[in-house]
Amino acid sequence: MPTQVNGRAVTPFQGVGKFIPQARKAAPPLRSCAQYPADGNKVAPSLVQALRRAGLRDGMTISSHHHFRDGDLVSAQIFASAKELGVRDLVWFPSAVFPAHAPLLAHLDSGLIHHIEGSLNGPIGRYASQGKMRGMAVLRSHGGRYRAIQDGDVRVDIAIIAAPAADAFGNCSGVGGRAACGPLGFALADAQYADHVIAVTDTLVPFPCVPWHIQGNYVDQVVVVDQVGDPAKIVSGTTQITKSPDHLLIAEYAARFVRDAGIMRDGFSFQAGAGGTSLAFTIFLGAMMRDAKIKARFIRGGSTRYLVELLEQGLCDYILDGQSFDLDGVRSLRDNPRHLPTSPFTSYNYHGKGNFAALLDCVVLGATEIDLDFNANVVSHSDGYLLHGIGGWQDALFSRCTILTAPSFRDRVPIIRDRVTTLCGPGELIDVVVTERGIAINPRRQDLFDALRDSKLPLRTLVELKAEAEAICGGAPQPARTSEQTIGVVTWVDGTIIDRVQRVGE
Amino acid sequence: MPTQVNGRAVTPFQGVGKFIPQARKAAPPLRSCAQYPADGNKVAPSLVQALRRAGLRDGMTISSHHHFRDGDLVSAQIFASAKELGVRDLVWFPSAVFPAHAPLLAHLDSGLIHHIEGSLNGPIGRYASQGKMRGMAVLRSHGGRYRAIQDGDVRVDIAIIAAPAADAFGNCSGVGGRAACGPLGFALADAQYADHVIAVTDTLVPFPCVPWHIQGNYVDQVVVVDQVGDPAKIVSGTTQITKSPDHLLIAEYAARFVRDAGIMRDGFSFQAGAGGTSLAFTIFLGAMMRDAKIKARFIRGGSTRYLVELLEQGLCDYILDGQSFDLDGVRSLRDNPRHLPTSPFTSYNYHGKGNFAALLDCVVLGATEIDLDFNANVVSHSDGYLLHGIGGWQDALFSRCTILTAPSFRDRVPIIRDRVTTLCGPGELIDVVVTERGIAINPRRQDLFDALRDSKLPLRTLVELKAEAEAICGGAPQPARTSEQTIGVVTWVDGTIIDRVQRVGE
Repeated sequence: MPTQVNGRAVTPFQGVGKFIPQARKAAPPLRSCAQYPADGNKVAPSLVQALRRAGLRDGMTISSHHHFRDGDLVSAQIFASAKELGVRDLVWFPSAVFPAHAPLLAHLDSGLIHHIEGSLNGPIGRYASQGKMRGMAVLRSHGGRYRAIQDGDVRVDIAIIAAPAADAFGNCSGVGGRAACGPLGFALADAQYADHVIAVTDTLVPFPCVPWHIQGNYVDQVVVVDQVGDPAKIVSGTTQITKSPDHLLIAEYAARFVRDAGIMRDGFSFQAGAGGTSLAFTIFLGAMMRDAKIKARFIRGGSTRYLVELLEQGLCDYILDGQSFDLDGVRSLRDNPRHLPTSPFTSYNYHGKGNFAALLDCVVLGATEIDLDFNANVVSHSDGYLLHGIGGWQDALFSRCTILTAPSFRDRVPIIRDRVTTLCGPGELIDVVVTERGIAINPRRQDLFDALRDSKLPLRTLVELKAEAEAICGGAPQPARTSEQTIGVVTWVDGTIIDRVQRVGE
Repeated sequence: MPTQVNGRAVTPFQGVGKFIPQARKAAPPLRSCAQYPADGNKVAPSLVQALRRAGLRDGMTISSHHHFRDGDLVSAQIFASAKELGVRDLVWFPSAVFPAHAPLLAHLDSGLIHHIEGSLNGPIGRYASQGKMRGMAVLRSHGGRYRAIQDGDVRVDIAIIAAPAADAFGNCSGVGGRAACGPLGFALADAQYADHVIAVTDTLVPFPCVPWHIQGNYVDQVVVVDQVGDPAKIVSGTTQITKSPDHLLIAEYAARFVRDAGIMRDGFSFQAGAGGTSLAFTIFLGAMMRDAKIKARFIRGGSTRYLVELLEQGLCDYILDGQSFDLDGVRSLRDNPRHLPTSPFTSYNYHGKGNFAALLDCVVLGATEIDLDFNANVVSHSDGYLLHGIGGWQDALFSRCTILTAPSFRDRVPIIRDRVTTLCGPGELIDVVVTERGIAINPRRQDLFDALRDSKLPLRTLVELKAEAEAICGGAPQPARTSEQTIGVVTWVDGTIIDRVQRVGE
């Protein structure tokens, strides 16, 4: 395991809850109102000008956000502008990358970008896996990214906040404008701690731009561009309910598990992502809640129309929303006072005074691999390629009952293994694994075994599920063909390094 | 002028906008979720226990807030609990004091409280003026208090946040519960920067307590007490429209000035306080807006029923509210999405990237004294006694047109003087003085003279107004009979010391 990552000393993972920081939060520079326009108008003539005024120079760290997901049109403009200014060796610190960012690989090739400090994905993950990126990929969860900024692990020189609507003072809203995308919480840490903050919008509104999801008091400059996001692609392509019979069965098992274990009771709470299986889970659970006349106290989004329906039908008191995955989510956030924006600070920051993730009665998440100790992988495939971001996955593991859903094999590769290719989540935090061939409860959770005593659900062990999948697929998966070179590290929520990612190929 | 205040080196006032800090924000200690209850339940059995767990010891600084104004029942409980723990020499750092706090003088006498670091008021101000308090009174505006915490001038050991409603995680709302009081923004800096934060409520609600005016992620412990505030006294006694003919005339002059100077135009903004004259100004201006079919973009509260009426009648787009002075203000904040809570961070912090105060087209404020250079006093009377807090007065001076309203004499003491007893606001920021005998425009604002050229308003000079008042009152006021001992300092919004306050008596 590396002891240095991109020039910074790192601490290896010590166990869940073991590493307690003895330090203080990062302290951004003090500013004075005397240094800002007296009329509050912070609009700069162009992104190039704004970056110049911000003092952009070689080696700086520039952060950006994934609120527009695959419809992001701002990141490309940031680096095109930086290129115009002739700088090199920038560190890009996004909150997530998407396939739309593949064209930025040219800037990694050219030396404009030195490396990407963040979760990688798709083509950019493959590029890093092939050892083509200078610097290591540093994978963090959404909460881990907030924490890294707060703790001073990453100092952001210039934060770019892409805003669907903003005023000249810098107040940014995620529910106005042509590219409305929902909460802007992923930009919060950057706004609070970066040395310099630039809001970029295509919809400038008179002060005050409300609701100010990002407060203008954190913003140095405002830039108006033609277009910040492609509305058609802001809505995530993943928010389609699965049509696969296996995945539907998994979703139904998971919902029945939540019901039969007694987790589904008046005033309970849950979180499920925007993947097809998670959406199907939400629909199944919603139907069970309706039948049993059970009302949740709150549901954590990523919001979708399915969560919004539960709220509007009175099946929950509140949606606490970290990001909106579709336009129903955006509309509800805008219009319904019971649909509240949250941020990685409130929901996920592990170096805080508690967070919302731990208050959830259950959470349903996916995984690429799970081992016999319930350890799980969410970033790489068994061939070793780094193809997925962590998202809020690690942070959400702290719920009272963490349920991983996964098919027992994908493309004839079994998912349950002796050892995961990349360790992202320690098994002690994973309570239940649901596959289409049965449900495995972590032996640490005797209470769940007891609760399920009379259930008709197919309870199995991971050993059984593994053996069955291997019988079908013709054995355990081949180990990944990787070299000793470390191309990335997976950061645990407390900033320690829980695993490394090796270069694929000899 | 003192160079040390309560053991801390201070910088003298350098002029408006001249002192630029070269430093970083205060950095509170990092915490870990592992140090907090896994179930998110932070409720402590009593305030005494909570203070013990917080490590209360001699000499610590304890902060509290004035959201309950003269109905505050929490401050007394804080110091009664501290007394039980046998500590001494605490520094009390309230956001404002009220006559209801007079019983706390016994703790200053006993040594439990060493001194009060904050704006003083009424009987406590008189006590300090008589030289009875150990340590100096450090008077700051609301924005100056936020800045002092942010900049690290004051390190709060334990912050007590009195909350009308809270959940066990520590989320606090100002619009729920039996003592609903409106925004809780005065507690924001304390929540963000204090070493330890205790929320005290009499109304514990299930998570999530929304809207979370203070986020539970800043809160270490929650204490439930019988009663936090007396609803009858939370509504400020000052929110009565003046019945004095002179004051009504002043209010009318001020409103006509705003209209005739062209400040009252579509999309404009204004702020007026909750004093009787300010309320009357709001009513006069509202009537003029109605007549002229003019709509404001926003009005800054302290909110009252008069502002709420303007919002509900469509005479403004938004109320941006720092505190609610009556129950109509509380109700509107709770129910109307166009009535938004603000904080000293958004509105007043001078060491930020601009603030809302500077965006106001005009503000109407009071003063105890004004000198011929338009310098003004808001904290002491001409007898030298420190009897009023600064509130947001200094912060609001940065509006585009700052109007001070004052009778030309009070109790036969002229208000306009050669030199103010205590300098709180530099004349260069004060544009207009409105008295019942006429309106004086600061010679720096030729644009306002030009705009008023055709107005029928009685334009006068301060020299004329002063002479007239002195003729009526039998001469200029006697200088205050003060000794050389400094009992307090007035801090400017940037942390420099703009004046000192001397002990009254020989």
